[in-house]
Order: sequence, then structure tokens, then C-alpha cells
Amino acid sequence: MDDRFHDECGVFGIFGHPEAANLTYLGLYALQHRGQESCGIVASDGNYLTSYRKMGLVADVFRDPKVFDRLPGSSAIGHVRYSTAGGSDVKNIQPIMVDYHRGSIAVAHNGNLVNAQEIRNQLELDGSIFSTTADTEVIIHRIAKAKADTLADRVVEALYGIKGAYCLVFLTETRLVAVRDPNGFRPLVLGKLDGAYVVASETCAFDLIEAQFIREIEPGEMVVIDKNGLTSYHPFDKVDPTPCIFEHIYFARPDSIVFGQSVYEVRKEFGRVLARENPVEADIVIPIPDSGVPAAIGYSEESGLPFQLGLIRNHYVGRTFIEPAQSIRHFGVKIKLNAVRDVIKGKRVVVVDDSIVRGTTARKLIKMIRQAGAKEIHVRISSPPTTFPCYYGIDTPTRKELIASSHSIEEINRYITSDTLGYLSFEGMRKAAGVADGSAGHYCDACFTGNYPVKFPRLKSDSQLGLF
Amino acid sequence: MDDRFHDECGVFGIFGHPEAANLTYLGLYALQHRGQESCGIVASDGNYLTSYRKMGLVADVFRDPKVFDRLPGSSAIGHVRYSTAGGSDVKNIQPIMVDYHRGSIAVAHNGNLVNAQEIRNQLELDGSIFSTTADTEVIIHRIAKAKADTLADRVVEALYGIKGAYCLVFLTETRLVAVRDPNGFRPLVLGKLDGAYVVASETCAFDLIEAQFIREIEPGEMVVIDKNGLTSYHPFDKVDPTPCIFEHIYFARPDSIVFGQSVYEVRKEFGRVLARENPVEADIVIPIPDSGVPAAIGYSEESGLPFQLGLIRNHYVGRTFIEPAQSIRHFGVKIKLNAVRDVIKGKRVVVVDDSIVRGTTARKLIKMIRQAGAKEIHVRISSPPTTFPCYYGIDTPTRKELIASSHSIEEINRYITSDTLGYLSFEGMRKAAGVADGSAGHYCDACFTGNYPVKFPRLKSDSQLGLF
Amino acid sequence: MDDRFHDECGVFGIFGHPEAANLTYLGLYALQHRGQESCGIVASDGNYLTSYRKMGLVADVFRDPKVFDRLPGSSAIGHVRYSTAGGSDVKNIQPIMVDYHRGSIAVAHNGNLVNAQEIRNQLELDGSIFSTTADTEVIIHRIAKAKADTLADRVVEALYGIKGAYCLVFLTETRLVAVRDPNGFRPLVLGKLDGAYVVASETCAFDLIEAQFIREIEPGEMVVIDKNGLTSYHPFDKVDPTPCIFEHIYFARPDSIVFGQSVYEVRKEFGRVLARENPVEADIVIPIPDSGVPAAIGYSEESGLPFQLGLIRNHYVGRTFIEPAQSIRHFGVKIKLNAVRDVIKGKRVVVVDDSIVRGTTARKLIKMIRQAGAKEIHVRISSPPTTFPCYYGIDTPTRKELIASSHSIEEINRYITSDTLGYLSFEGMRKAAGVADGSAGHYCDACFTGNYPVKFPRLKSDSQLGLF
Amino acid sequence: MDDRFHDECGVFGIFGHPEAANLTYLGLYALQHRGQESCGIVASDGNYLTSYRKMGLVADVFRDPKVFDRLPGSSAIGHVRYSTAGGSDVKNIQPIMVDYHRGSIAVAHNGNLVNAQEIRNQLELDGSIFSTTADTEVIIHRIAKAKADTLADRVVEALYGIKGAYCLVFLTETRLVAVRDPNGFRPLVLGKLDGAYVVASETCAFDLIEAQFIREIEPGEMVVIDKNGLTSYHPFDKVDPTPCIFEHIYFARPDSIVFGQSVYEVRKEFGRVLARENPVEADIVIPIPDSGVPAAIGYSEESGLPFQLGLIRNHYVGRTFIEPAQSIRHFGVKIKLNAVRDVIKGKRVVVVDDSIVRGTTARKLIKMIRQAGAKEIHVRISSPPTTFPCYYGIDTPTRKELIASSHSIEEINRYITSDTLGYLSFEGMRKAAGVADGSAGHYCDACFTGNYPVKFPRLKSDSQLGLF
Repeated sequence: MDDRFHDECGVFGIFGHPEAANLTYLGLYALQHRGQESCGIVASDGNYLTSYRKMGLVADVFRDPKVFDRLPGSSAIGHVRYSTAGGSDVKNIQPIMVDYHRGSIAVAHNGNLVNAQEIRNQLELDGSIFSTTADTEVIIHRIAKAKADTLADRVVEALYGIKGAYCLVFLTETRLVAVRDPNGFRPLVLGKLDGAYVVASETCAFDLIEAQFIREIEPGEMVVIDKNGLTSYHPFDKVDPTPCIFEHIYFARPDSIVFGQSVYEVRKEFGRVLARENPVEADIVIPIPDSGVPAAIGYSEESGLPFQLGLIRNHYVGRTFIEPAQSIRHFGVKIKLNAVRDVIKGKRVVVVDDSIVRGTTARKLIKMIRQAGAKEIHVRISSPPTTFPCYYGIDTPTRKELIASSHSIEEINRYITSDTLGYLSFEGMRKAAGVADGSAGHYCDACFTGNYPVKFPRLKSDSQLGLF
Repeated sequence: MDDRFHDECGVFGIFGHPEAANLTYLGLYALQHRGQESCGIVASDGNYLTSYRKMGLVADVFRDPKVFDRLPGSSAIGHVRYSTAGGSDVKNIQPIMVDYHRGSIAVAHNGNLVNAQEIRNQLELDGSIFSTTADTEVIIHRIAKAKADTLADRVVEALYGIKGAYCLVFLTETRLVAVRDPNGFRPLVLGKLDGAYVVASETCAFDLIEAQFIREIEPGEMVVIDKNGLTSYHPFDKVDPTPCIFEHIYFARPDSIVFGQSVYEVRKEFGRVLARENPVEADIVIPIPDSGVPAAIGYSEESGLPFQLGLIRNHYVGRTFIEPAQSIRHFGVKIKLNAVRDVIKGKRVVVVDDSIVRGTTARKLIKMIRQAGAKEIHVRISSPPTTFPCYYGIDTPTRKELIASSHSIEEINRYITSDTLGYLSFEGMRKAAGVADGSAGHYCDACFTGNYPVKFPRLKSDSQLGLF
Repeated sequence: MDDRFHDECGVFGIFGHPEAANLTYLGLYALQHRGQESCGIVASDGNYLTSYRKMGLVADVFRDPKVFDRLPGSSAIGHVRYSTAGGSDVKNIQPIMVDYHRGSIAVAHNGNLVNAQEIRNQLELDGSIFSTTADTEVIIHRIAKAKADTLADRVVEALYGIKGAYCLVFLTETRLVAVRDPNGFRPLVLGKLDGAYVVASETCAFDLIEAQFIREIEPGEMVVIDKNGLTSYHPFDKVDPTPCIFEHIYFARPDSIVFGQSVYEVRKEFGRVLARENPVEADIVIPIPDSGVPAAIGYSEESGLPFQLGLIRNHYVGRTFIEPAQSIRHFGVKIKLNAVRDVIKGKRVVVVDDSIVRGTTARKLIKMIRQAGAKEIHVRISSPPTTFPCYYGIDTPTRKELIASSHSIEEINRYITSDTLGYLSFEGMRKAAGVADGSAGHYCDACFTGNYPVKFPRLKSDSQLGLF
Repeated sequence: MDDRFHDECGVFGIFGHPEAANLTYLGLYALQHRGQESCGIVASDGNYLTSYRKMGLVADVFRDPKVFDRLPGSSAIGHVRYSTAGGSDVKNIQPIMVDYHRGSIAVAHNGNLVNAQEIRNQLELDGSIFSTTADTEVIIHRIAKAKADTLADRVVEALYGIKGAYCLVFLTETRLVAVRDPNGFRPLVLGKLDGAYVVASETCAFDLIEAQFIREIEPGEMVVIDKNGLTSYHPFDKVDPTPCIFEHIYFARPDSIVFGQSVYEVRKEFGRVLARENPVEADIVIPIPDSGVPAAIGYSEESGLPFQLGLIRNHYVGRTFIEPAQSIRHFGVKIKLNAVRDVIKGKRVVVVDDSIVRGTTARKLIKMIRQAGAKEIHVRISSPPTTFPCYYGIDTPTRKELIASSHSIEEINRYITSDTLGYLSFEGMRKAAGVADGSAGHYCDACFTGNYPVKFPRLKSDSQLGLF
């Protein structure tokens, strides 16, 4: 279901193109779904870095074309960000940009470091000051303190001992560096446009600017791009990659290729397996738009039940909807979705969604579908029950709030008031994702299993203290 | 295809509810697709009318909850408006509100009068002044000049001789009046919420506020709502109603019931008949989202070809996208839609859309689908060729710009570079809409036939002078 | 004292200059003191009128230079306006612009009609509608209904029977008309710039654009300016002019020439006579800035007591100061003015101000001066006690609120806590203004005498009902 | 002359008052003249620091009262800032707030460090990163690296070796520290309000909040305020204080007491001595408002020539005036000031201003006064010729741009087209300021003499390289 999880960020970078800042703007626009709170661009003209960073959506922040006059140069990086921290505090907006003894450096980060606090404490004891609360700032501090001679070596030195999920895109006056953590939790892809290299969180950013998708930046790979071209490094100890399965389940755009697979096709396969595992006699299959659509199509194909768009999404929903002050009732999900009565009335309806977090939204939607006249409602979830929080860059609630961590499927079914409820099995998910048959690599599945591939010294935030 | 046609407006009204202005806000929010340029609310507290009207989307204009403090009272009307006139000219924002010898009156209008200019000229010769360029102002002038004793009679007297399409919602200190023209071109529905009467352009506005849909306001009907309840009048000479078929083809939201029929179901039936009339050997059916979805589902069902979401819509597209100033290329439709390569690659694709206007957008989309690897592209349009402009409230381009008015289907097929192109036939459309079999009344089909049910004394604007 | 009275408006017009809208903007900027709530410009390119009108200060409303692209043409009129009506209601912003049977016409109005309501009632009974609550709209209605052939004659016909204060500047596609009521209550001057005629409320607008001041538009005069030049008419019955003495006392800018006299010099003379009439043994003379400065200089010169700037005005005070929400005290006048302790401490201080309205601000200022260490405080007011409200365009409070209407000078002295209080005598004012010795004409002095030169059929607004 | 020089900043702090943030807002409002580009407040509730910082004037930035809900606590510091750097770059807005190993700390700085670059280079070599380009950041870095146990000692340790002008106000969770550099270049005063300590750049901030002025923070003094009260330290080597004479000449508000003297009285004395040194036969004395007023009053008193307000300032001038895009002429100083023709016409006029920088503004003003009819214009400047740039916190132009550094008084007189030109002599200034007779301490007079009391290792910015 939309807007329940939030990936922390999306990143973009381009080196060697006369329209660097403009293209970064477009790239961020295509990655807007990965972060809607703030965004920013840092550009280099070969001698100086300049930045423009602000709270707001990409199209709003960069509305005034004159902004681009302040971002000259042929290389640029950009960032979109979501944060649970409310309000208008601007200090965490990325890319972070600082001066240090070698010049200037900026960085855009997607992910979450599990030992950032330890390293930060150590740096503070050594006299460092921190202007943001972002994990990313520790990396910049360590680069500034690194002794190595080349930028590449300094980045590697800085990342030594850093644990967790990170896709980092650095920009200096003359170089762009992109690094993906050894586990490869978050996606990062490499492309080319008019001879310039491009990096982005997802391929949909390449499609918009008509860049050619070359390949993934591999887990543990660092690429350094300068006027001499691209150099690839694998500076870290090799581990088994564990990309995040939730990118396929929910986060990534369905028109992206992520971890080598079409998100749309993986989602549809989730729906197919879900149909085989959880068949039901029914009249129609409807998705929760937009995230549930491909799985619902897969379910429809496999089950033979007709696919219908039984819920319509209001196009004009944005961050900005303000419920009336003296509101007589809470509008919640109705602001976003409305049922098509003539599609649903008198029907046995299979409702396909990607996941259930707290169950409250599902409960409201089922009430809406019931009011539209559904005879039976069979909820089918295209992923296993989410029982553990994520520490690698996804803003899931605490374990206590995850309904599946403390309730059986039947209990959830009763809570959300569906007639039946079926989840995709863990093995079914692995099979659909190609893990079981070896056609795809392993994935991080900690949110379903608690099997965290990178250990963390202690919990990162109070908000997740309910975990153990 | 989205954003090519624009209905002039959506209207809403409520009488006798303590949350009148708040509910009007929500109603306008649900009707936002009918007009995105400006919006406004006028409320009455029984003694005075107050208004808040501004350029912008509903959620933006009414963002500050304090606005509602200025709109006290238990009755209110609202309006959303689109206009081809660019810029920030505020003078045409509705509802219009004036004082006259009987007190104050406000009006919200959806439609287009064909003899407004004649009446305006006459009124000006009699010494009237006009503060707006809207048709609606002539009606207000005539109400002020009407001699009848009751508001109901004055409205009827004012509308005498007024020709064209109108759904009007009036508000005075103590009454709400809703009128639909005898032809019933535009939709207008009546509902009830907590004992209060509600009127709206579409039922989707009722769904959001959880009002009960009672019935359509009939063509030629006027309802007067005051503290004594609702009184219905049929003051006009009876004519055969001709509601606008394009509400079903494109304008209305699929979750609305319009002219007594589910928009979603009518669109799906368009797709079914389209499939029967224009079969093709292919692998998949994809819609142009979002307007083409129900017809594509119908086409898929009838043809047996699998439905896929081959084009993904960017959620964050709004009116506000600014193309980069020094843009290296024109992004056009790519900003809105992106192809899912793995769905399309190597496939024979049926692309379903609701209509073709100029052909330029279709041409770009087909290029995008072709670049995504489609082997064949078969465009199927769920309406007949649009060959005549509308004079009853829809902002179609001039005849010269309508590609189908001067090109054969085969010529259009070549222009948009599809492999084949098929339109729904006129008879097929009538059959799908239930006209042919008598299960639904007649429709205005002037945009396909040039058969205008209400004559106009002369052309309304230069922009459409290319017609004859 | 600043900000206590508010003149309704300032007007500006220019005909025959390629920079018409830009110069109007500058003219309004110089007239900003006459109205801070809203402003607007209407321009004509010879065929069409275009407008830009908004709530806000001139420099804010016209901040975006692109606005001027929408105001093409070589003639323009403009308006700044103050209104007691709070909030953002835009409907009364001037210039008013309408279409009627002869084309388009716009008008900017400074003044107040005393029989507007009667005429409005009559017009409404004849079927007219009113979009604003401004007096000005009745004039436009009457122009539209006028039968005369020429614009000049129609304006005269429209003004027939209109009573009160008005300086009107009309703009049509091809003409600019400026009219001043027979009493000449409000100022209106004629100038020339690069061959183009200019009209404005005050000469300070000419100074800024470097136009040459030619002469006053005379009381009862109408000038019509078109491509053939300027024609002057005196279409009204002649009455003894009664320009508003308060323009000299408070409203007009001291650098303007108003009613043929330098405002600065008249004010200084007020101060001189005040010193002769109300001498006192003291150490220094200080003004309430900025309006009291010239009179204080006059008082200083005549009395021989040294002039000091004992109160400093905060430059950054604007309409926008928001007192802290949880404010621990009310800041009032301290936000604007601060005492210079070393100037005042231990001194016997003569404080010169132009007038006292309610007495509350004076009371606060005297407390501030006392706290700064003044040994004695002798308040001297450079006008007689204000005892009657104005019906000719100045927004004075009701009689009940005017402290001098119900309190003796000694009572006021006690209320504001000054040691002594002296007013300029009525005869002293006439003498200083040149009335007594015949060097200047008569003035309207109704606010001091209740001797209203134009009778009004009934009271205009409830807010002044306390009068009789 | 206004707006030619710009002091970098104003600072404010309060400890132990329930309305800390609100009072800081008011204090900044009174200090607005010291910096109009950006402003900010940091508050402490005893456990956490929170901040609100933005580009814009104080009244605009803090317009929404809800902002104060985000600034809870009983201590707060604030900052107003001017910068030559244009645009909207937010990174240098103060107070700076960071986390370090002892917690959080914020600082507001008024002044300029002459060896900031050296220290910054050293810190960067040690691995520090810099997020701003402000001098102030080096101090924060050094506090974080300081080894001392107490905050007081760490601040002293951090300031060791720091040279230049600084008034610093620090805020931690539980303490407020205010420090003034040993030379005492910039003013800093201590006050008390309802038992809470208050510090501010000028006493006018105390007047507005009705705090009691206690004394100056002495040159070289550091005060630490916590729940136990105030402790004063003098941790630096004692040097002869050299407060900035230009605070008295131009920067400070005339209603402030600065360096123990009334600014108004010092300015008036400058005018008196100026009159004695540069007498002239004339008719009137007029100031360039507002900065020239007190000196003009002094000149008038000493010379016996009558003081007149011959130039009127437009109240509504702000940072926001936009000259019309297609402007036909440059309006420059006319936007701000207008001559009162009747005051000036035919007169021999003494024009008193505080200083001349480039001479261009003076030239325009003299042209304006001449056009208003002045028979003779005698310019009198209430300070010696400004010949050297400031390195201690005032944004003067380079030496090349200072007209007096390369032109004789007679040459300047010819350039600005005055009849005669007279400056206050250096000795006259010292005498008027009380230096000569020992009634006041020494002042920094480097801008007149090039005698810089604190040496700088190298020039700070290219923009001033023209100096030697």
C-alpha cells in the first residue's frame, strides 16, 4: 500500500555533460517516489562546487529556471530524501557539501549505516563537530581525515569499518565517485548519455533522460569517473550480496530494472505464485492502486479471474492535503482512493496488495469495498508477513507496530475484516524472485525472517526499541 | 488521452449542514479533474454571503484552515474551473457573487451558453456593465432585472431564451437553486448527507463526503432548496435530452455514475465492442493510463489478450512541471509516462486510448513504445473519430486542429506511426452506451457528427472559426 | 500621528508615453502613503484594456517585472487603496474595469460619495448588479447607462446628482479622463513628461518620474486627454471650493504641493502659530516622527527652543509586524518609536504632533518619554481638536471614539498624562493656512466644526452612527 | 549615507526567561539595521537546542507565530546578518549550531577575524570539514577540539590565537556565554529583564523589551550565565581597547548607548565641531535623512542657521524595490529621497551627511537639491575622509573605490558638484568623541588613518586587494 514505507532516498549523478544540472533535475524527478521531503543538486564547473537544496518536491524546488544558472558545470549529483523528522528543518537536506584541506566535496547517500553512531561518537571525541544528524556526515569527516593520496583511496579509507547499507555518490571539483556497499542492499545503476556517464538509484531515471542503461554498479564496487573515463574498483572484502527484496515488492518503480530484474515482471510473478498458493472462488481481482497493480494482474492471469480497476486513485493527491480544521470525520484513505460501485457490487472480490504494515489502512479499504457492495472480500498479499523492522534504509515502524509480528494471519484477517486473507509464502517469494531456482541471487529478507545480514552494535533509534 | 480536452468546470452545493464550507471543499477536491485553474467557495450564514476564490488547485487554495472561518454558515456552493486563458487573471474565477436589489446572489456554472454574446450585447445596450468575460455573468444580470416575485421565478425568467449547456448552482442568503438545461448536456446529481441536500457534477463528490446519491437532477429541472426542504420544477419546454457522450468517453471520473450509468462500465463496454469491431492478432493489451484503463480491460476481456500495465504514470506530475530552461530536448509525454520494457519487448501490442485529438501525443507515445521493443503496435481508440468542436462546455481545439476532421483513419495511422489503427464505430459507441438497444437515452454526439442539438446564432470565438 | 487616519486612496494616470505602466508603477510607489492595502494598474494599448490588481504594497505587487508585459500600451491609470475592511477580499481592489456597450472602461477613485447608497439602491431597483461594495461602481453603472454620445458627456451625465468627494481618473481604449468634484475635497494635479500628460493625487509622484508639475486640476474641472491633446471642461454648477485641510495637517507628503501650497511650509507655519498661541518654558522641542517634524521645526523656530530628534523611528516597521503569540506584554508604539534617553533626560520637553484621535497612542508615547527621564512634557498639537468624523474620504473613527468630541482639553491633558496640552486654535489654523488673510482659499474644516459643506441624505455606515 | 556601509551583524541573547525566543525575536527586530539579509534564533529548553534560521527580514522570517512553538525553552540567542554574497545561499545563516562530544552548541558572531583563513587551513590539514564559509565556524571547531573541562575554559582555549573583531554569544543546553574581543571593536551590552540576563549589540534592543541596561560587556571580557547566575572573566592579555568610531558615525542607532556614550549626542557634537571647523554663509541646514539628522541639528545649533527637513524619505523603501524592467532611466536615490522644493528654492543650503564613500550617491543628491532650486550647496561631512577599508567587521569597499583615498577634498567637491565641501577634521572627531579631552577612551580609526590596531597576516579577500 502506498505511502506506508519510505525509502530514505534516491541518488543521481552525471559527469561530463554540458547539461549536467538540468539532467540531474530530470533524474531526480523520475526518482521522486524515493523521497518527497527535500531535494538538492550540487554541480561542479571544474573549479568550484555550487549547490541548491530545499524542502519540497523536485518540480517545486527547481521551478524557477534561473536556479540552474547557479549550478554551472558539466558534472552534478542530486538527491531526493524522505525523513520521518517533521517540520522544516533544513539541516539534513542532501547532498551534503563541505570544504576540507583538499578542496570541496559533496555526497548524496541512499541507505542507512548501522554503526554510524559509534563512529560519530569516536569522531566527536577527536574533536569533530556535526552540523547534521545524518549518517552521511561521518563519512565526510572520515574522508577529510583520511591520509591517502588519491580521492579513490581516501574514500576507501573512509569507508573502512563503516557497516550497513549505502549507495554513495560523491562529487569533487573534478571527479564523481559512486560506491555501493558490499551487500548491495540498495540499487545503483550505471548508464551513458551522449558520452557522459550517469549513475542513478533506478533505471527509470535513465529512461526519462534517454540515457542508455549499461549495468548495475555491483555490490562492493566503487567507480571513479573523471576526464579520463571510468575506473572500477572492488576495494572491500567480498561478501554474499543481499539486495533488498522490498525494492521489488514495493519501493522501486515498476518500470525500473532493479538488481537485474524487471520490477514489473517480478511483481507479476509474485501475484502468480500468490494465486497458486492462495486460490479462492471469486468473481474479480482488484488491486490497491498503484503499487498492487502488477501483482493483481499476475493473480488474475494465474487464477483466470478477471482483473478490474475497482478502486480509483485521485490524481491530485499530494503531500499537501489538509483535512478541514473542524472536520466532522476523518477522511483518511478516502481522500486517495474511491471504490467503483458497479464493479464491486454483489461480487466476490479478490483484493491484491503488496504488504500489510499496521493493518489500519487495509481495514479502512475493506470497509470501503464492503460499503460499495462486495459480497465477499478476499485479501491477498504479494509478500510474506512483515515481522521485523529494517535497519538498512527503509523507514518501517517498530516491531510492536507491525501487526504481523504479534498476530497470526487469522487474527489479522479478523482485524482487517476480510473474509479470507492469504500471504505469499516465504518460499513462494524466493521462487518468484528467482532465488529458489538460482536464476537470481540472494536477497535480504530480514523484514520477514529477522535474519539481518549485517550485524549492528546497538539499536539506532528509540523509535525501534520495541524490537527485542 | 489525459489533459487534451478540458471540461470547463465542476460545481458543488450543499444546504443545511453545519460544515457546509468544509464539505464543499471536499466536494471540489473530488471534482478537481473537471478544472484545475482556479476554484472558489461562497457560503451563506443566513444573512450574508462570503466568498474565497483563488487561482490554483483546491488543496492549495484552501490549505490554510483559517480560510474556513471566513466562510461561516450552513449552506455553500463551490466551483472548480479550467480555462484556456493563460495567466493569473482572477476576474473570471467562480462562483460569481453580486449584490442586487433583492440582496446577494452567487452562482457556479458548468457549461457554455451559445447565445451569451447576443444577450450580453443586448444587456450592454440597456446599460449593463460586465466585470468578467464569463457567460455566467449574463444570467446574473437577467436575474437582477427579472420582475418575478420569487427567486425560483426570477431564475426561470432569467433563463428564458438562454441557449446552450448549463448546470447552474445559485446561492442566496436563504436558498440554494440548482438548474440543468433542458438538453441536460452536463451532469448534475442530487444527494443527501445528515439531512442536508447536496448537489454536485459527479457522484464521486458524494462518495468522498459519504453523502447518499439520490438521483440525477433531470434535464430541464430546477430544484429550489430552503429551510422548508426541496421543491422541484420543470419550467422549460421539454426537448429530447442530449447528455454529452464525452463525459463517458473521457471527462468523468470512472468511479462516478453519470447520466444513470457507471462510467467505468460504459468505458469497459466501449472496449469490448471496440475489440469485436477491431480485432487483431497480438500478444498484450495495454492502456494509456489513466483514462484508457477501463476500455483496455474491456478490450482484453473480449479479445482474450492479456491486459498489462505497459506504461507507468509518474505520480508527481502536476501542472507545475517546468522544462529546464536550456533544455537539450523536449520531454513532453515522457515526463508523464514511461514504458515498461520487459512487458513490451518483442511483443505485438494493442494500445487502447479513449480518443485522438491532434495526434501529436499519440505519435510520441508510439515512438516510446516502439523504443521499448514492441514488435507491432495496434492502436485502438474507444470512441469514433473526433471531427467537430464542442460548443457546449468542452474546450476542444478548432476543427482544423482535429486530425480526424481532415484525415482518413489510414492517414492518421501513418502519422502516428502505428501498425494498425482502429476506432470504435459510431454505431458501436451507441450500442455500448445503451442507446441503440434503448437501455439508455440519446446523447449529444456532435463532436463525431456535427449534429448540434442546440443551434447557435454565430460562432463564439475566433479560436474555432476554422470550423466551416 | 502616523497610521491613525487613513485616506482612502491615491490615483495616478498617464496618457501617451511608451512606458505608461512602468511610470504608473513609480507614481503609485510615490503615493504609497495614501493607501497600503491594495493597488492596481490598468493599461491601454489603444484597442484593449488590461489590468493587474492585487492585495499588498506597490513594491510587492509589482515585484515581478514580467507583470509589465501584461500591461502593454501608452496609457495607464493606477490606484493605491486603504480600507478598514480586513482580510484578503479582493473584490474592491481598484481600478475597477468593466465592459459595456461602448467598449471597456476603467476607473480609479479617491474620495467618498455621500449619496452612493441612494444611487445604488435606485440602480439595483432598475436591475443593476454590483460586484463590489465600492462607491465607485455606481459611477461606472451610470456611465454605461448614459445616453450621451461622447465619453466626456457620458461622464458628466453619470456624475449628475453624485454628491461628495471624488477625484476620478478614467481610462478607455483611447482616452483618459480626470475629474475633480466641485468642492475639490481631494487633491489632483496635472503634469507633463516627455510630451505625455500625467495626473496624480500629489506632486511627489511627479518628482519621482521627473514629470513637470503644470497646475492643479481645478475643483469642478474635467480634463479629457486623447491623441489630440487635452481639453478642459467645467461641467458642474460652481460652488465655493472646500479642499480638505487635513491633507495639509497630516495626509499629504510634506514634499508635495497640495492646493497650491507647500505642505511642508504650511505645516511649519502651523507650528509657528502654535508656538505663539501656546508658549511654554521648556528646554527642547521634539516631534512625533515623521508627521510632526515640520510643525516641530516651526515651533522651534518661533519659540527659540532647540529642535531635537528625541524619538527615533524604526525603519523596518511595516504592515507585517506580528506581535509574538504568547506575548508577555503589548508592544504597541514601542515597535515603531524609541526615545533617545540622553536627549530627553532631565529636560522640559515640548512634544509636537499633528493631531490626537483617541488619545491612546499619545498616552503611550508620553509614558515612554517620561520613562526616558523627561522632567516636564508639554504636548502641542498643530491642529484644532478633532471633534467630528469625515464623510469625504478619510477614515476617521466615529464621534464617540474621537476623544476631543466629548472631553475638554484639560481632560485630554489628564488622560494622556502630559503636563500641559495645547492645540492650535481654529483661527490660528486658518491664519497659518492663509485663509484668514486671503492668501489661500477656504478649506473644508468639518472635522473641527461639524460644518459639512456637502450635505448627506443619511449616514453611510454603522461604524459612524455615533455621530448624532 | 544610508545603505553604503554594512556592519556584518547584530547579536542578542537571553538566559532564564520563559519568553526567551519571543524576546529574542523582538531584540533582533530592534537590531534589524545591523543586518537585513538573514536572521535566526536558537533556543534551549535545558536539554536540547532547536533553531529557526532563514533568509529575510526579522518580521518576515518570524511572521508565523507557530515558529515559536519550535523554539521552546528559557534561553535563546539570535543573529541578524548582512553579507555581500548575493543570492539565497542559506549555508552561512547564523546562529551556527552543531553537535560535538559534549553536546550541542550554537554561536552568533558579530565581527571579523583577521586570521580565520590561517586557522581554517590548519584545521583542514588536521582533517576538519567546513560546512560554511563563515569565520565563525573555526571557533566552533576549536571549541570541539578544546581539552579543557569547563565550557568557559574551552571557549577561552578556542579563542587563543584568534585575532580580529568579535562579539560572540554562545548557547549550550544549560549556559549562555558572551565574549568581546580584547580590542572591543564591536559593541556588546548587558542588561536584565525580570531577573533574566540579556546581552545585545546595542541598547536599543533593551529599550524595546523594556530590559534594564546594566553595563557594557568590557573589551576582553567573557561572561558565563547559567542557573547560578553570571560570572565574569577577563581571560585575555590586556590591550588598549579600540572600539570602532564608525559605530558612532554611522552604524549604531541614534537611540542606542554605545561604548558608554549616547550615539545621538556624539553625532550632534560631530555636527557642532564640524560647524566650527567649516563655517559657511548660508540660509538653511538640511540633513541627508536619516543618518545625517543629529549632526545636522548640531551644525544648526552651532552655526545658528535654521535646521530644515529639506529631503523627505519614502517610508516604504525596503530591500524589495525592483526598478521597472524596461526602465527608461535609473531612479537610484530618488526612490528613497525627494527634495522639498519650497524649502530649498533660492536658498544657500548646507547639506550634512555622515560620510562619503564612492561619491556617486552624493553627486545624485546634490543634483536633486540643485534641481529643487538651491542657490548654493555646501556639503558638510561629519567625519574625516574615509581612506582605508575596514578589516574588523564593516563591509567597506576596496581602497580603490573609496573616493577619498585617491582624491583631494577639492577634487571630491568638483566630482559631487557641490559649491563647497568640508569634512570634520580627524582631531575634531577625536575631540567631539571625547578622546582628545580624555572623557572617552581611544577608538579604532583605521578607516581614516590606516592605523590598524590588530595586524593581519594577509589580506582576507580579493575584493580588497587594491589596498596596498
